[in-house]
Amino acid sequence: MLYKIKKMVDLKVEKEIKIRFSEVDSMGVVWHGAYSKYFEDAREAFGDQFGLSYLYMFENGFFTPLVSLDFQYKSVIKYGDAVKVIGKFIDTPAAKIIFDYEIYNITTQKLATTGKSVQAFLDHNYQLLLYPPTFYLEWKKKMKL
Amino acid sequence: MLYKIKKMVDLKVEKEIKIRFSEVDSMGVVWHGAYSKYFEDAREAFGDQFGLSYLYMFENGFFTPLVSLDFQYKSVIKYGDAVKVIGKFIDTPAAKIIFDYEIYNITTQKLATTGKSVQAFLDHNYQLLLYPPTFYLEWKKKMKL
Amino acid sequence: MLYKIKKMVDLKVEKEIKIRFSEVDSMGVVWHGAYSKYFEDAREAFGDQFGLSYLYMFENGFFTPLVSLDFQYKSVIKYGDAVKVIGKFIDTPAAKIIFDYEIYNITTQKLATTGKSVQAFLDHNYQLLLYPPTFYLEWKKKMKL
Amino acid sequence: MLYKIKKMVDLKVEKEIKIRFSEVDSMGVVWHGAYSKYFEDAREAFGDQFGLSYLYMFENGFFTPLVSLDFQYKSVIKYGDAVKVIGKFIDTPAAKIIFDYEIYNITTQKLATTGKSVQAFLDHNYQLLLYPPTFYLEWKKKMKL
Repeated sequence: MLYKIKKMVDLKVEKEIKIRFSEVDSMGVVWHGAYSKYFEDAREAFGDQFGLSYLYMFENGFFTPLVSLDFQYKSVIKYGDAVKVIGKFIDTPAAKIIFDYEIYNITTQKLATTGKSVQAFLDHNYQLLLYPPTFYLEWKKKMKL
Repeated sequence: MLYKIKKMVDLKVEKEIKIRFSEVDSMGVVWHGAYSKYFEDAREAFGDQFGLSYLYMFENGFFTPLVSLDFQYKSVIKYGDAVKVIGKFIDTPAAKIIFDYEIYNITTQKLATTGKSVQAFLDHNYQLLLYPPTFYLEWKKKMKL
Repeated sequence: MLYKIKKMVDLKVEKEIKIRFSEVDSMGVVWHGAYSKYFEDAREAFGDQFGLSYLYMFENGFFTPLVSLDFQYKSVIKYGDAVKVIGKFIDTPAAKIIFDYEIYNITTQKLATTGKSVQAFLDHNYQLLLYPPTFYLEWKKKMKL
Repeated sequence: MLYKIKKMVDLKVEKEIKIRFSEVDSMGVVWHGAYSKYFEDAREAFGDQFGLSYLYMFENGFFTPLVSLDFQYKSVIKYGDAVKVIGKFIDTPAAKIIFDYEIYNITTQKLATTGKSVQAFLDHNYQLLLYPPTFYLEWKKKMKL
């Protein structure tokens, strides 16, 4: 019960993606390297909407490079297809920022790609943080996590 | 014993990578999106060396898009570092092409990145193959797999 | 007078650009290679709005690769800046599609970049057209050019 | 006569380029955005060979962003073609670094692309230099310019 009350904020973004011609390979389909850009678009949209942008983290003293990424192809995206990416914040007690992704092909009404990314915190001397930084814990509290 | 005799061909490539300035992000380190290009460089070098290039597969009637990819960050790559990528062919009975990757930072003498990719076979009508195509089975036989 | 009446359609698009973190280089500013993507975004927006998309031209039998491009830096774009690109169709009797571009930095209220691109028509055998194709002349007539 | 003696150093590099599959667009030809990367490869090779690398300039206190770039398409590059880029340093008294480029398609024995880039000097406060910095004048002297 209490749980439900806490989960008032749905830590998820949806963003429409316009496929660039340059993202289509010689098979006529979206090149896999573009997925990581669409995931990035989701992270940026999330940062803007929920106050956890790269700039905000940088100003708090941290870089947050990706330390792992994976994606799985589900169905084809062709040039001209309408597409959206969904990014979902996955809570963890670790000093990490985790997102799950889904790319939907609106034109074909099929799930096109799934994926996941993990970011770590580096301070400005490139030292890896073992514990979540204070500003991140405070942000989580504000998000009722 | 027989096994050892079969494994005469070491299905592995090593390729030096020259870091492009444009692959370095505003943290001064190589942007994660570049890893997938270095993995691609390894696949291309493998294709050239072992006769399994994109062009060869295309002429045999197939596209081989990536259906999954993952990487894990191990240590930093900075602009100016000497780097090499190692791509290793992983045999599977499935209708797939699997590679494991390691990126070494020669300058720091550390493992920088590990990763894995899986490619499927699509025919020219974009239909997914459930069984390995004949040309691929023949190539494997030639490689003593 | 007649001229003014003809020029009813203003062949220009404006499109807001969201700077991707991956487009910022290690100087902390937008990497020049990104300009050509913002120009591409303008062309795509133009194609969508005025009925001259890549897909439309392809269906009419033509590729329209860029045969020349230039840009001039005017002022800096930093990560987080609000930016828009303006693409303006430049009429020519030649078998070419010409655009002028301006990238404005809304945050600094300065012109950031200017540029120009020229596209040619190739048929599906990669032969260059010396005269504008019929569909392009008809599109121009519809645009009152 | 003296002139000829001065010009002992030929300020030119040649570098073989391996076309990446991801640089080929859905027309089956190299996407124009890749040209700027090949030009970059030429600049890096030049910097390595003649002691004018990005790192060297950075250590001397300067960024050298591109302030203008242009290219002209001459003939097609297809995936699998052998290609080389030639970068030639063009001397100028201005506070600029200028290169001319030619991309040759070795497979077709045709000139594929020409181009030119201009870089300016920014100090670490992003202020544009109006006069060439001392280290650059010294480098030129060493190059007998």
